[in-house]
Amino acid sequence: MRKVASSLVFAESPGFLFFLFLIFSGGTVRSDEGMWLLNDPPKDLLAKRHGFELTQAWLDKARLASIRLNSGGSGSFVSSSGLLLTNHHVGADALAKLSSPGKDLLKTGFLARTRAEEMQCPDLEINVLMTIEDVTDRVEASVRGVTDPAKASAARRAETARIEKESLDKTGLRSDVVVLYQGAVYHLYRYKKYTDVRLVFAPEGAIAGFGGDVDNFEYPRYGLDICVFRAYENGKPVESANYLKIQPAGPKENDLVFVTGHPGVTQRLETAARLELRRDHLHPFMLGWLRTMENGLAQFAASGVEPARLANKVSHSIANSRKALTGQYMGLCDEALMVGKREAESALRAQVKFRGQDPYQAIAEACARQAAFHREYALIERGLAVDSDLFTIARHLVRMAREDTLPGPDRLKEYRDSARASLELSLFSPAPIHGSLEKVRLTLGLTYLAEQLGARHPLAVKLLGGKSPERRAQELVDGSRLADVQERRRLAQGGQKAIDSSSDSMIALAKSIDAEARALRKRLEEEVEEPERQAQRAIGLERFRILGKTMAPDATFTLRLAFGVVKGYEVDGTELPFHTTFAGLYAKADDHQGASPFKLPSAWIDRKEKLNLQTPFNFVSTADTIGGNSGSPVLNRAGELVGVNFDRNRHGLVRNFVYTDLQARHIAVHAGAIAEALDKVYGASELLGELGLR
Amino acid sequence: MRKVASSLVFAESPGFLFFLFLIFSGGTVRSDEGMWLLNDPPKDLLAKRHGFELTQAWLDKARLASIRLNSGGSGSFVSSSGLLLTNHHVGADALAKLSSPGKDLLKTGFLARTRAEEMQCPDLEINVLMTIEDVTDRVEASVRGVTDPAKASAARRAETARIEKESLDKTGLRSDVVVLYQGAVYHLYRYKKYTDVRLVFAPEGAIAGFGGDVDNFEYPRYGLDICVFRAYENGKPVESANYLKIQPAGPKENDLVFVTGHPGVTQRLETAARLELRRDHLHPFMLGWLRTMENGLAQFAASGVEPARLANKVSHSIANSRKALTGQYMGLCDEALMVGKREAESALRAQVKFRGQDPYQAIAEACARQAAFHREYALIERGLAVDSDLFTIARHLVRMAREDTLPGPDRLKEYRDSARASLELSLFSPAPIHGSLEKVRLTLGLTYLAEQLGARHPLAVKLLGGKSPERRAQELVDGSRLADVQERRRLAQGGQKAIDSSSDSMIALAKSIDAEARALRKRLEEEVEEPERQAQRAIGLERFRILGKTMAPDATFTLRLAFGVVKGYEVDGTELPFHTTFAGLYAKADDHQGASPFKLPSAWIDRKEKLNLQTPFNFVSTADTIGGNSGSPVLNRAGELVGVNFDRNRHGLVRNFVYTDLQARHIAVHAGAIAEALDKVYGASELLGELGLR
Repeated sequence: MRKVASSLVFAESPGFLFFLFLIFSGGTVRSDEGMWLLNDPPKDLLAKRHGFELTQAWLDKARLASIRLNSGGSGSFVSSSGLLLTNHHVGADALAKLSSPGKDLLKTGFLARTRAEEMQCPDLEINVLMTIEDVTDRVEASVRGVTDPAKASAARRAETARIEKESLDKTGLRSDVVVLYQGAVYHLYRYKKYTDVRLVFAPEGAIAGFGGDVDNFEYPRYGLDICVFRAYENGKPVESANYLKIQPAGPKENDLVFVTGHPGVTQRLETAARLELRRDHLHPFMLGWLRTMENGLAQFAASGVEPARLANKVSHSIANSRKALTGQYMGLCDEALMVGKREAESALRAQVKFRGQDPYQAIAEACARQAAFHREYALIERGLAVDSDLFTIARHLVRMAREDTLPGPDRLKEYRDSARASLELSLFSPAPIHGSLEKVRLTLGLTYLAEQLGARHPLAVKLLGGKSPERRAQELVDGSRLADVQERRRLAQGGQKAIDSSSDSMIALAKSIDAEARALRKRLEEEVEEPERQAQRAIGLERFRILGKTMAPDATFTLRLAFGVVKGYEVDGTELPFHTTFAGLYAKADDHQGASPFKLPSAWIDRKEKLNLQTPFNFVSTADTIGGNSGSPVLNRAGELVGVNFDRNRHGLVRNFVYTDLQARHIAVHAGAIAEALDKVYGASELLGELGLR
Repeated sequence: MRKVASSLVFAESPGFLFFLFLIFSGGTVRSDEGMWLLNDPPKDLLAKRHGFELTQAWLDKARLASIRLNSGGSGSFVSSSGLLLTNHHVGADALAKLSSPGKDLLKTGFLARTRAEEMQCPDLEINVLMTIEDVTDRVEASVRGVTDPAKASAARRAETARIEKESLDKTGLRSDVVVLYQGAVYHLYRYKKYTDVRLVFAPEGAIAGFGGDVDNFEYPRYGLDICVFRAYENGKPVESANYLKIQPAGPKENDLVFVTGHPGVTQRLETAARLELRRDHLHPFMLGWLRTMENGLAQFAASGVEPARLANKVSHSIANSRKALTGQYMGLCDEALMVGKREAESALRAQVKFRGQDPYQAIAEACARQAAFHREYALIERGLAVDSDLFTIARHLVRMAREDTLPGPDRLKEYRDSARASLELSLFSPAPIHGSLEKVRLTLGLTYLAEQLGARHPLAVKLLGGKSPERRAQELVDGSRLADVQERRRLAQGGQKAIDSSSDSMIALAKSIDAEARALRKRLEEEVEEPERQAQRAIGLERFRILGKTMAPDATFTLRLAFGVVKGYEVDGTELPFHTTFAGLYAKADDHQGASPFKLPSAWIDRKEKLNLQTPFNFVSTADTIGGNSGSPVLNRAGELVGVNFDRNRHGLVRNFVYTDLQARHIAVHAGAIAEALDKVYGASELLGELGLR
């Protein structure tokens, strides 16, 4: 099915010349590329390159043991009684929501010694992929012959909603239509859903994220970035044989390993025009916003112990995005990458004669249209100007009231029947909302709005009301009662009438900009997304015809299989080993004289003597991952869990656009480190027993 | 001479309606406004409002005891043997340059117990104002009848250079023509200059800047923000009777106090059009740059002990600017301020019939022209894209080689004969340049360039050379030898030939963008500054005719006299006292559990028992100050030093545009705190003796 690398495949690789530039040879460097679909796995490739026979049984077990978390990461079942293993930074959202003044679980960590001590997360949802069905023909049939992009966009959305609704009604499973190959292919994914998820174990933030922002996306690395939950159903732990056995021996150097997880988003099949849009417009705009937020949140955090606690979770994800985007931006500014992309495009275009408009040209035009309003869209519809939990709630309430009067297929995607349960889980979450943090985030978002559009822009005038961002944010937060879940339920149940008569400041704001926000969204869908989808389908069909599906589709936060080899790499003449050790952790803490972010938790200082310091801590492999893969299990040939993926190194940051394994690696916590730490540092004997580690 | 507030004066105040809005009364709120010229002091105002007779002797003594530092602040002579008192954050530049790996004076502080222990600063220059002469007629005569703005700009610059050169030749004093009232008035300032300045005392950074960025621009405050130097001449301490006696009793509540110092820049006489340019273009652009730098420097600083030391000084001033500009931006976004400004303008325009073009319209047009290229100007000519000491040196060397072949009056301002000595002091400074810090700053500047102009902008292409900002910065720093002072001297002496044949990467970069950079500067001077100066002169002459010089000119980093009353203020129902105490310092440190930036130096913890905790620490007054006033002496009626100004509160941030004393205050270190700390914490008996404090 899948062909081994040929010159044609290379010519099609967007980063081919980039690699040439990097390594002066067009060898076999990209051979472990791919975040493969579970229903179209790289069996031939694995057999030829690694002598591994991928069986359906192996694949089914890996699929059913792998989970997606709605907090934005991956994980896996690791016991027959529903224990789930993921990253600390994926669990962070839940940890923050379970904390309170004076009780900072993100900082102190947590261990439930009995099931009674486990803490139920207020709004954590996990999904397990059950089936995949190709629905491309049905989606495409709905738009066949529809020439008006607005009508095509509406028809496509309606058909998608119908497919999802039918599936939900028939199976009771969460049903999502997933757009693959930028619109060339549509698959229906059905998930089993768990919403009663409880916290079992988390280490201290200082060891989970040892090195903080400094070491984020770096290697050698020393982080126990893990978190353990348990899934419940009907008040009882989920009992199932579909779990991964933890293998504390871990992988050896040059071992083949697999990563099953939910990579969030990549842009490898995007055209040069779209990457240029990112480079010249989208990335600079987002980087400016991220710096504004990070900067302001850092100031808030420095102002006291409680502000530091509140800012922690959101600061971490902002800093993480800033660092990832900065790395991507460096890549996009490097002509070597863009030249490679353009030449690869030319190579395909030289072989193909498209009917009608050149799809590459169509995409370039769509990008030019997007450039004209991307700021307004991001600020108002995506909500960067109103970065506030209260506003998010207000917008949902305002929109639900109206959307619920429409037939399902005509609604905005997030208000479809098939999405309602997940929406309500989040909308009525009892997780606390903190006014002081809301004010800071809103002030920063409104400031960026004014700076970007100008304080006299009609949207800025509407949002600011002639006041400074700081004064306006204060008034908005103080004038809202939406922190109260009962008030939200009251408004949701009251429908349009309740919304119309509400005097809540956030509801008023959401109402006042709703027409403009919806118009921006419609404009994006009709002027950009729909034409691009059609063009990408034209390109995709030609590519499949010539090359077959030799490349996996770009990541879509759906389950994928990646594979690679455990091995170190060279930087500036230094060979970095394939794994680090606990001894290295202590040495690094010493080097930094215990200064934050290299300060060890006291338990790690006190129990150093007990630990086997030669225990492998973190390791790297060439498998193809991206953000969203955080928490993914790393499996060996036997399908055992040998590690938990938690990061890429800096060289892996350009993997959004192009796969490389010259130096790029993903980074995982070694299974042996988990076992050793749970035993010697945390004395978590019950947990070790259930995991089969003692 | 100066009139007491009349309704006409109020109508002319740019912030009049803003005050109305704030306090619902047009009373006497602005009466202590003014950064007054020393040759046109507010004698009548002081007599009428405060019953104080300002004598020429008082004024002369204050003038001769007040100093300006080229590191960007103010200070004063405080002993007959040349001791100088300023702020720690003004001395920080020198402290950083006198530090080295493992010896971080910014952090540890410093005390010379003997003159032999004093440390000579590598490039600190101080100026004492000797005379002021009105040269308006001569400057204006040089452009009379010249209608072409380019020619007028050149003629004005040439005449200014001639005036300065003649004065320097005649008097041997540093001679600067200062543009007042945005171009309505020109004065020649002559300074005595000292370039042998030695460090005597600095407290630890943690007590000088207690509360860090969190408490910057806030009150109540607890900072010992002082630093002591000694001026030498011909190898001996400067002996003079023109010094201020420190009065440790300090001021009482409601006391009249004076501030003599060098306020940097205000915009109170700017038109609404120019403030809108700031709001819509200049401020957002600068804030984005500042956040980019602050964010990147924070990451660098977190990476280790030595990076933290290197980043410290520059991070502090970046953060300070960011906080100041953010406060200003909040004000500019508040319609209350802008409406007041526009109405005040209308009031004047209603009374006046200008000949020729309406000068307000001319300024609006100049602002529109500036908006079109302000980014390029700031990035390339002001150098924000190339924020690097090495580049600054390279540009000077490249430009000097060419400018020195021209007659003095035709040169760029900074290469005039009258400015040469100060330029060389900085150009050949032995202060260390750190490659790692240079790379970080350059990477950040180049990133901002690419983001703002787009990576395909001709200037971005030229500066980046197709590489990522990170890769380019590395190559530029590694390819330069300009950290070596001897290499700089060799290039300076070799003139154009040496520059032409240099293969230094930074010299090459400076050469490659020099034509574009000069063109941008010319464009600003001719299309914006010259038309605006002419328009402001037309406005100024009418304003003087109708109102007299009832308002001081905007700040120009030249010596001014401000006065005010020592008093607290109310915030949200809480009365803040006019001074804080040492007891408050310890209480605040406890509140923050000793977390940075509220961590006390060990000496302050160890010697707490010895201190009189009721000693006043910081105090506030209504006197009119702005950045640049840092380190200014605060004087009592007797002309004694009762404090050292070091900051404004947050309410004072809009003072750039409008004076208010409703809550706005400047903040000073109390003279009593200085005496108590030098004695009990630092045991600085020799210093206390020389200061007459024991």
